[in-house]
Amino acid sequence: MLKVPEHQVAGRQAIDGKLGPLIDNSGHFYKPLQDDDERGTRELTFYHSFSSNTRIPHHIRRFFPVFHGTQLLKASDGSGLRPHLVLQDITSDHINPSILDIKIGSRTWYLEASNDYVQNCFHRDKTTTTVSLGFRICGLQIYNESGFWKPGRKLVRNFTANDVRSVLRKFVSSNVGPEPDCCFADSVYGGCDGILQRLLELKTWFEDQTMYHFRSCSILLLFDKESFLKGKTPFAEVKLIDFAHVVDGNGVIDHNFLGGLCSFIKFVSQVLADSKGSTMEDKF
Amino acid sequence: MLKVPEHQVAGRQAIDGKLGPLIDNSGHFYKPLQDDDERGTRELTFYHSFSSNTRIPHHIRRFFPVFHGTQLLKASDGSGLRPHLVLQDITSDHINPSILDIKIGSRTWYLEASNDYVQNCFHRDKTTTTVSLGFRICGLQIYNESGFWKPGRKLVRNFTANDVRSVLRKFVSSNVGPEPDCCFADSVYGGCDGILQRLLELKTWFEDQTMYHFRSCSILLLFDKESFLKGKTPFAEVKLIDFAHVVDGNGVIDHNFLGGLCSFIKFVSQVLADSKGSTMEDKF
Repeated sequence: MLKVPEHQVAGRQAIDGKLGPLIDNSGHFYKPLQDDDERGTRELTFYHSFSSNTRIPHHIRRFFPVFHGTQLLKASDGSGLRPHLVLQDITSDHINPSILDIKIGSRTWYLEASNDYVQNCFHRDKTTTTVSLGFRICGLQIYNESGFWKPGRKLVRNFTANDVRSVLRKFVSSNVGPEPDCCFADSVYGGCDGILQRLLELKTWFEDQTMYHFRSCSILLLFDKESFLKGKTPFAEVKLIDFAHVVDGNGVIDHNFLGGLCSFIKFVSQVLADSKGSTMEDKF
Repeated sequence: MLKVPEHQVAGRQAIDGKLGPLIDNSGHFYKPLQDDDERGTRELTFYHSFSSNTRIPHHIRRFFPVFHGTQLLKASDGSGLRPHLVLQDITSDHINPSILDIKIGSRTWYLEASNDYVQNCFHRDKTTTTVSLGFRICGLQIYNESGFWKPGRKLVRNFTANDVRSVLRKFVSSNVGPEPDCCFADSVYGGCDGILQRLLELKTWFEDQTMYHFRSCSILLLFDKESFLKGKTPFAEVKLIDFAHVVDGNGVIDHNFLGGLCSFIKFVSQVLADSKGSTMEDKF
């Protein structure tokens, strides 16, 4: 029984007769290969290359969804059988997960792309936080006492630096109002198993690896309050997703991803530091 | 007695009646403030801000030329008196210095600039190594037994990734032929006082500082073989120069400079590792 993913926060959705990903009840995520451009082929090529690449350290492989090959399935748009990537459904083990989808890099285009694609990306990068911050939030949902807060695409696209800071605070708060309490900041962002530590591991790898350049790729942050409160692990996850624009690194590090990742790390660090500061202030 | 700098490898030169920088015999470098755009004003503003900024650590200040204020001087183009920035002449203590001028960042434009400026930079960035490598060599001179090797601007502009690797090898070699010996690699790039270590110090600062964004700024590497052979220090230097396009960081790290710097560090590391590898091979 395939169904539309409940917790998808960005990208094309399998609703209203459109082509989009599907999930099953066994933890699989089926992503249709598009035939209108090279994206599907490039993503498949990446998964094949990555899964057989012996130079990927074990602790880095954990950042990527598990790849189970491809499968012919009835497409969600009713167009009949179509090959789908079979991937790990990252959300399947989580109840009411809060999710942030952050597209990393100050540039989403690449030299190999068509002129139209470059111009579109160039415009979008300038009019979102991509150029100014080195990343942009593409979608999110944050669970709180009254259900999910899931702002619309237009709102997300217009996020400023301060909106980003606010979202990073709300993500680790019990409330999503104007004064988020950041009560989960220390557990989720901090600590030796927290998101910040995981991002720093990723950064160290990106300072060295020259195999892949991840254009237009996202980091997905997932935090599940119920799992946390019940003491389950992992209650927070960091995954890389969307590899339709991965190109050969040609012996050069992915300085575009790395720069954006470092900027995002600084934002998370600041939220963590501020939350500690405010806790200290509360005490005195 | 002012004169045209002997060791200028990039930028506008004070020759053929043009406006350019001058030096004296006391270690000063006089850079004319241009009145045709905001560059001069912006560079002066930066030097004022930076020199009075108490949040700059001492070990970071060493990467910047000393600023001695401004002075009215006869301009090199014969246009009469004009204000000049009075800066430290980085080359003054060195005999026959080998110099690399590397413009750091995969993007030289910035959101605050005019559309024409953005389009010009965008084109230049794509057609040099700026986009692909995250930096480009703007000029160089390398001293060897037969004098200076100083390729012309057009040649430098067309450098590929492999040309960059070759230049980084020649910079630390006793010869500049097709097979540079890299005999100074370990001393100049390696060690606790070497260029790589200095670049890593700079990287650590850029991971944290959110005050300035250095667009179109260069790292100048200087290596003076004679000082090295005579045991003088410093025989190698790392300086940041050209601040006409520094903009406010607005609380965000300079991810563009940082990404390019990390890419450049990887290139230098590889030359150093390869030179050690070849020395090992020579032994066996």
